[in-house]
Amino acid sequence: MVDIATRVYNHKWKIDPIVRSLIDTDFYKLLMCQSIFRNTRDTTVTFSLHNRSKSIRLTELIDEGELRQQLDYARGLRLTRGESTWLRGNTFYGKRQMFRPDFMEWFEGFQLPPYHLEVRDGQYDLTFEGKWHEVMLWEIPALAILMELRSRAVLNAMGRFELQVLYARAMARVWEKIEALKGIPGLRIADFGTRRRHGFLWQDWCVQAMIEGLGDAAKGGAFTGTSNCLIAMRRDLEAVGTNAHELPMVYAALAETDAALREAPYKVLADWQEEHEGNLRIILPDTYGTKGFLEHAPDWLAGWTGIRIDSGDPVDGAETAITWWKSRGEDPTQKLVIFSDGLDVEKIRELHEHFAGRVRVSFGWGTLLTNDFRGLVPDDGLAPFSLVCKAISAEGRPTVKLSDNPEKALGPTDEIARYKRVFGVGQQEAMPVVV
Amino acid sequence: MVDIATRVYNHKWKIDPIVRSLIDTDFYKLLMCQSIFRNTRDTTVTFSLHNRSKSIRLTELIDEGELRQQLDYARGLRLTRGESTWLRGNTFYGKRQMFRPDFMEWFEGFQLPPYHLEVRDGQYDLTFEGKWHEVMLWEIPALAILMELRSRAVLNAMGRFELQVLYARAMARVWEKIEALKGIPGLRIADFGTRRRHGFLWQDWCVQAMIEGLGDAAKGGAFTGTSNCLIAMRRDLEAVGTNAHELPMVYAALAETDAALREAPYKVLADWQEEHEGNLRIILPDTYGTKGFLEHAPDWLAGWTGIRIDSGDPVDGAETAITWWKSRGEDPTQKLVIFSDGLDVEKIRELHEHFAGRVRVSFGWGTLLTNDFRGLVPDDGLAPFSLVCKAISAEGRPTVKLSDNPEKALGPTDEIARYKRVFGVGQQEAMPVVV
Repeated sequence: MVDIATRVYNHKWKIDPIVRSLIDTDFYKLLMCQSIFRNTRDTTVTFSLHNRSKSIRLTELIDEGELRQQLDYARGLRLTRGESTWLRGNTFYGKRQMFRPDFMEWFEGFQLPPYHLEVRDGQYDLTFEGKWHEVMLWEIPALAILMELRSRAVLNAMGRFELQVLYARAMARVWEKIEALKGIPGLRIADFGTRRRHGFLWQDWCVQAMIEGLGDAAKGGAFTGTSNCLIAMRRDLEAVGTNAHELPMVYAALAETDAALREAPYKVLADWQEEHEGNLRIILPDTYGTKGFLEHAPDWLAGWTGIRIDSGDPVDGAETAITWWKSRGEDPTQKLVIFSDGLDVEKIRELHEHFAGRVRVSFGWGTLLTNDFRGLVPDDGLAPFSLVCKAISAEGRPTVKLSDNPEKALGPTDEIARYKRVFGVGQQEAMPVVV
Repeated sequence: MVDIATRVYNHKWKIDPIVRSLIDTDFYKLLMCQSIFRNTRDTTVTFSLHNRSKSIRLTELIDEGELRQQLDYARGLRLTRGESTWLRGNTFYGKRQMFRPDFMEWFEGFQLPPYHLEVRDGQYDLTFEGKWHEVMLWEIPALAILMELRSRAVLNAMGRFELQVLYARAMARVWEKIEALKGIPGLRIADFGTRRRHGFLWQDWCVQAMIEGLGDAAKGGAFTGTSNCLIAMRRDLEAVGTNAHELPMVYAALAETDAALREAPYKVLADWQEEHEGNLRIILPDTYGTKGFLEHAPDWLAGWTGIRIDSGDPVDGAETAITWWKSRGEDPTQKLVIFSDGLDVEKIRELHEHFAGRVRVSFGWGTLLTNDFRGLVPDDGLAPFSLVCKAISAEGRPTVKLSDNPEKALGPTDEIARYKRVFGVGQQEAMPVVV
């Protein structure tokens, strides 16, 4: 029996909204948002969308009117009572009241701030300017909206069974990956795939398949949770994630002198240390080069729980960290290394084999979990592409990211040169950016 | 929104019935039923289930109580008003009132007769004894019930996502086949997969995929219809099929002398010719050997529209028919050759390439359309197997089938020897029975 009310209700939709909740976002955005809310609330920052895959001309695929409708819909969202209750009452990383009452009060009244949209050279120039803790919450919904509008544009011409078979193929592929991962003893892996997912329902499917295939880590399985708060809430999973490059990037942009610039990345972590402990004390070392960052790091940082390797050769990155921990008298086997860059099954297996027993290994699996439609439609029209939304300036000063892969560098050329000098970054090995 | 009424209704089911309609059967069973109803109504015949795949011990997979429940449910079925209206009012093979009023009146009151079930050596000994036109209607539902109970037994232990991925893989496989078939110009193909289908819903899915992928032949596509009446009715397709081995088998068993036995297969077609014309005049020549059957055939049979090749080497069979037509002064390019034995994409392509232009070629695609789950579960537990339900005796006399493949022969050894002598069948090449 068709449920008539559902069908009639569906017909009333003006649009099929892509982002339907303010917590359909990565958990670390909320952690960072609270940090910023507490430490540097009045900083003006600009976030900007950037498509690193130039060959994908988004303005030719996505109608500007539809994009505006989706962005406007997201602007209308407010935290629901249930979402608020969950954020206030749930345990995150073993801690109650992770989100403090003053932050929650602000968040309960929050709506996404205005956006600025222009068309330039086949791409959408989409920017968000305003208070840092407000505009930063646009990052994930903006990416998710553009990724899904692109998926929809490609799927639009397909027949009903063609569509069903497309998803059948994609499901079989995800399941094969999960079956392959089952064979890795002691694996720990989370979903980090919100930002460049194929679509919300698809991410939700992938997460549920991970639960069934690998088992929830809370019940002895290998699947440690999802970065997506809405899915974590609905599927009764751990919400996971710690912090990202925007913190050192903005702190660095605000630095008045080279000396202050050099200290900025450590200042970020000093602030973080005041708020968080245990598994939330994860170093993200690559913003201005992992090697120099660790060499010059204060001793207290060696006491942190672990490190996240998000660019460059991951074996090199983790080996550098192990050497560093040893040089600071720490036992690497007690440390956690989280890999989160361009992962797929083979790389996960290799890294796990290389490091298991030497450090505690964990994986944050992103785009190739939630958006691997490579080769499934003509012209590979659903292959994931490299869309980012980054803080590009703070208080009118440009931000810079170097990372351990020059292909991922961001910022004005002269500023990149200055940062390289200040942070002592020499020759870097360029690696193709997978996603 | 969940439709509560649907959910509560589903909970009330005692069983999930496999066969839910008397017309969830092959169209040719109804044509033959009417023929028998008209010509030899009072013949007592026994149909019996036979599993040619001995290694699959059905009694260990399927609970006897469940089997009885399903068979009993089928016995409770009556033709619905809509089904009756469709059979009476629809055009089949271009003809109105294919089913005559006296037959329809009888069919409207019909229920499947009692069955006899015993367990023997790991197999179900399931027999149906009674008036031929009544017991013959058990063939398809009995096969469909056993095939689907076996599928369910294997699927029973699987998780929700594992199941979804299993069907995803099977869908992707069917679609790949359909995409491959799209590349064959002038192809004409029908679904003949009812009897050994994975399940009803799955057959229905495969048929719909064929419609979308190949296009309905009524609208210029390559898909000429389905043998399944219920699906033909619901999906607005041609119901297709002509006649089967049971007619010559029973006619032959009833023959009193060797001379009468020799004539029996032609008597079947003489009776058929009185009722049907055009594309329903299709010779099924292999019951007692294609070669001898055609050599000794009366001239009027060469005027029939075509031939169905259902055993032996299909190229040999069709070449034999072409040579025969030429020897009787007929133009083979005007004749229809229907291949229906153990087909899959590669064989379809080969046969089409071999015969296109020389005869009109058509395909009845069965088990490997509607039940290709090979390799998709451990121990290949869902691979199709060779289950048949055949007339084994008529008026207490055993039936015999030789076919063009000795592996498909049926009947007591001494009777097989007598039939071989009477029909002049010599050495035959044994071929593995695919399904």
